Parts: sequence; structure tokens; C-alpha cells
Amino acid sequence: MTDLTPQQLANACAEAMFARDQASQQLGMKIVSVAPGRAELSMTVDQRMIQGHGACHGGYLFTLADSAFAFSCNTYDKATVASGCSIEYVMPAKQGDVLIASAEERSRGNRTGIYDITITNQDKQVVAYFRGKSYQVRGSVRRLEE
Amino acid sequence: MTDLTPQQLANACAEAMFARDQASQQLGMKIVSVAPGRAELSMTVDQRMIQGHGACHGGYLFTLADSAFAFSCNTYDKATVASGCSIEYVMPAKQGDVLIASAEERSRGNRTGIYDITITNQDKQVVAYFRGKSYQVRGSVRRLEE
Amino acid sequence: MTDLTPQQLANACAEAMFARDQASQQLGMKIVSVAPGRAELSMTVDQRMIQGHGACHGGYLFTLADSAFAFSCNTYDKATVASGCSIEYVMPAKQGDVLIASAEERSRGNRTGIYDITITNQDKQVVAYFRGKSYQVRGSVRRLEE
Amino acid sequence: MTDLTPQQLANACAEAMFARDQASQQLGMKIVSVAPGRAELSMTVDQRMIQGHGACHGGYLFTLADSAFAFSCNTYDKATVASGCSIEYVMPAKQGDVLIASAEERSRGNRTGIYDITITNQDKQVVAYFRGKSYQVRGSVRRLEE
Repeated sequence: MTDLTPQQLANACAEAMFARDQASQQLGMKIVSVAPGRAELSMTVDQRMIQGHGACHGGYLFTLADSAFAFSCNTYDKATVASGCSIEYVMPAKQGDVLIASAEERSRGNRTGIYDITITNQDKQVVAYFRGKSYQVRGSVRRLEE
Repeated sequence: MTDLTPQQLANACAEAMFARDQASQQLGMKIVSVAPGRAELSMTVDQRMIQGHGACHGGYLFTLADSAFAFSCNTYDKATVASGCSIEYVMPAKQGDVLIASAEERSRGNRTGIYDITITNQDKQVVAYFRGKSYQVRGSVRRLEE
Repeated sequence: MTDLTPQQLANACAEAMFARDQASQQLGMKIVSVAPGRAELSMTVDQRMIQGHGACHGGYLFTLADSAFAFSCNTYDKATVASGCSIEYVMPAKQGDVLIASAEERSRGNRTGIYDITITNQDKQVVAYFRGKSYQVRGSVRRLEE
Repeated sequence: MTDLTPQQLANACAEAMFARDQASQQLGMKIVSVAPGRAELSMTVDQRMIQGHGACHGGYLFTLADSAFAFSCNTYDKATVASGCSIEYVMPAKQGDVLIASAEERSRGNRTGIYDITITNQDKQVVAYFRGKSYQVRGSVRRLEE
């Protein structure tokens, strides 16, 4: 195990985590790329995501960003959870939009980290900015029981 | 129309909005109560909401709180959207948990408002705190085209 | 030491901390009251706090709320610092306004906590809402070196 | 007036605003640079900024970032105020530290904008991340009465 490169470890963590992540799978999310401290996920806005004003429910934008956040902060095989997050909406997303959430690590200390996630649509327009605060718990990402 | 009480108006807005809100319906949310500036929604954590660490995906907690926020700030028949939100997680939710999100208006100015939402589980334990900033746009809640 | 009541301990912590807190003293803050998990501080907006649009600089509103937050989360004699904070402005404060920041504990776990602070003016109008996330570090509040 | 370049306009706004901004001046802040949607301010941590745990009060870190935010979003001669802000602390600042707050525009719509501010110290270490939400009001930056 110890001879994995950081990139290989990031890949292995993402695979193991995605296999268990029914929430992200159910929404049709796909991992576009991962790297240490980074992740890019895509999701297409479908009918079930439409809220009472006719646009994509903010909860689904949040969920996409939150998943990108989770994949980016779990690339070191140290189980890490969110302690809090914030999202700022820039423009609405509509049914059929193909969204990309790009997560980037801003800082990572002993146990806590800060990650910035940007959601863009197929026209490269920014839909929302998300900031996540992470907290490292006990255990491995690849083997849950550890 | 003009002779509705504020409570009746809040009820009418919630009904109209919920009927169009496929996102909240799909997740099994139910409106427990609404009043001017307030709303209480319930949701049971089911299998599709479980993420890669075995708990309820933060995105679904957010979505529940966000819906309660949306219903509470749209009780005046003035179409109102979220400009930004933040959530702080207190404890994880597990499959089968019955969650309640209670939204309360903290302030409401000309066009913007602040709402605090608390998510609790069936044991009255706090799962998360959410704060939403609202922004009033043009139009009615009950008749989208208006 | 061990025979202090929680209220006496809160008082002792606040006294020790305020004596060292040149920042809060310099701004003329006064501790109105403390109790376990709670604190109320006052501050009068003076000329040095006025920013380029003629109102109280948001930084001073934040600083007042942040101090109330610090005093409320340090009432247990466990040294506790802020990990992050957010503030939402409701109405501007003007020179001469007497502001009160009331801090209330919303949750407190092993090492982290959530506190809500409301700033009001002399007319009981809400000026800003503040939310602070705390993180318990090593050491005592009353004796820094410990 | 209309023949100013965007950079000249940004400079003129910053000068006019700084001249009125007693809060930023009092704290020894200096404008390092401005450009449309951007500003860099410096501040040295002095004794009056030290809080009860012996580090720079978070309120002064916030105030520095908030000033950088204000100068960056007021570079278009449209009077703009903060609607809300959040700050995440990465490491403490100590007396004598020379801090730089760099503000960058992330988005700017009809009336609202999002700005990210990073505070670093003299060793290029990140001290805090700040995000500000702006709201454009009536009037000019250069001539308050307008």
C-alpha cells in the first residue's frame, strides 16, 4: 500500500468512496477527475431536481458541490467529514444543464481544512460558489472499518 | 384574494409551491406546518441518501433545510429565492431517521431576509443548523407567471 | 477551585480574559453579563469606527460580536478559540449608537461549538446576526500558561 | 470624468473612500494596490489588537479583510456595501506581524457581487480566508452626496 503515489492514492480513495456513495450515484454524478486535494464532478439537472420556482433546487446544487468537496478532502486516505459549508448562488440552473463542480484545497492543517468549490454550467458560466470546512476523523477512506 | 388572513395566505402559498416542487416531493418531504415567516418540514432518511462514510449525505440535510427555508420565506405571496446559505453539522443522521426542519424568520427587510433553520431528529437531537439569506424577486408565489 | 458553581466559574473566566483583552478594552466594550455559554457585551460607536460610507465599519460590528462570542464560549475554563464566523448585516449603525451583542450557545460537543450572536442598538433594532464556530484548545482560560 | 480608464476610476474611488475611512486609517491600514474589482491592503498587528488568548483579535483580521473587500467592490464608482461576510481562520497572527489582505472579485451581477479575500503574513503564510457578499446601493463612491 505504501508504494502508491499521491495520485494513485487519490484515485484509490475516490473509487472506494464512490462505490459506497449511493447518494452521489443516484443523482447521476460522475467523477471527472481527482488529484491530491482536488476533485471534479459532473451532474446533469433532471426533472426530479426542479423546485417550486421552476429552477434546479438549491439543495441539488449544494449536494453536487458537497460531493466534490468530499471527494477532494478524502484523497489522502484519512477519513474526513464536513463540519460546515456555505454556498452563494450566482445564477439559476435549469433542467438539462450539465454542471461541473471543481473542488480545490485552500488549506489543510492537522485535522481541519478549507476547500473552495465552483459550480459551472455547460457554457462555463458560474452557477454557485461553495466553501467547505473539513474535519479529519479516525479511519481510512478505502477501508471503512479501519 | 385580498381578504385572506396572513395565515391563509401562507397556507395557499405553501400548497401552490409544494405542488410544483418535484424536488421536495421526490425526497418524501412533508409540510408539517406553515405560518407567516415560518415552516416546518419532515423527511425520512432513506437508502438513496447514504454517502460514502455510511451516513446521510450532507446534501440531503441541506436540501431539507433549504426547502423549509424556501417555504418559510415564500409565505407572503412575494416570490423569494435564496441568495446564499450556510450549514453547520452537529451530528450525523442515519438511515431511518425522521428529520424535522423548523424555519424561523429572523429579519425581513425590503427585499432581503434572514432565516434560521434547525434540523432535529426523532429524539429531538439537533442534527444541523442552517442559515439562509433570501432575496425577493418579481412575481407571485401562487401564480408563477405573474 | 473545584467548588465554584458554573456561574462563578463563568464570572471568573470572563474577568481573567477581559483583563488580558486589550482589543475589547480599547474599543470601550463592557461586559454586561455572563453565564455558562452566554455573554452580553456593550459598545458605543465612536468616531474612529466610521468607514468611507459614513456608517460604522462592519469590522467593528464583527469585533463586538466576536468578543461576545469569545466570552460566551470561554465560560467553562477550557481555552476555546474561533475556527470561523459569519455575519449578516441587517441595518447600519451610526456614530453614538449604543450596541449590545448577546451571545447564546446553540450546541457544544467534545471540542467544537456553535454560538449565535445578535447585535441590537439602543432602540432594540437588530443591526446584525453573527454565527461563530468554536474549537477547544489546550489550557485554562483563567491561567494562560496552564 | 467620463474619460477615466477603469484603472484610473478605481484609483480615484479608493482615494476618495480612504480619505473618509477613519476606521481603516486609525488601524494603520495602507492601500498597497487597487484595480477594477481588486484591492490589496496592509496592516501591522499592534498591541491594541491583542485579545485574551495573546493573539490578534479575530475582529481585527476581519476588519482588515473587510476593508480590502470594501475597496475592491467600490472600484466602479457605484456605492456598494456588504450584505454579509464569513471568515475562516487558518493560523493566528501575532503582535508585529505585517498582514496583507488581497481581495479578488469572483462574480458581479446587477446589484450583488462575491469577493474572496486572503490574509497572509510577512512569511506568505495564509492567516485567514474571507468571503464577502456585496450589494450595490444608490450613489457615487467619489461624491457621497450624489
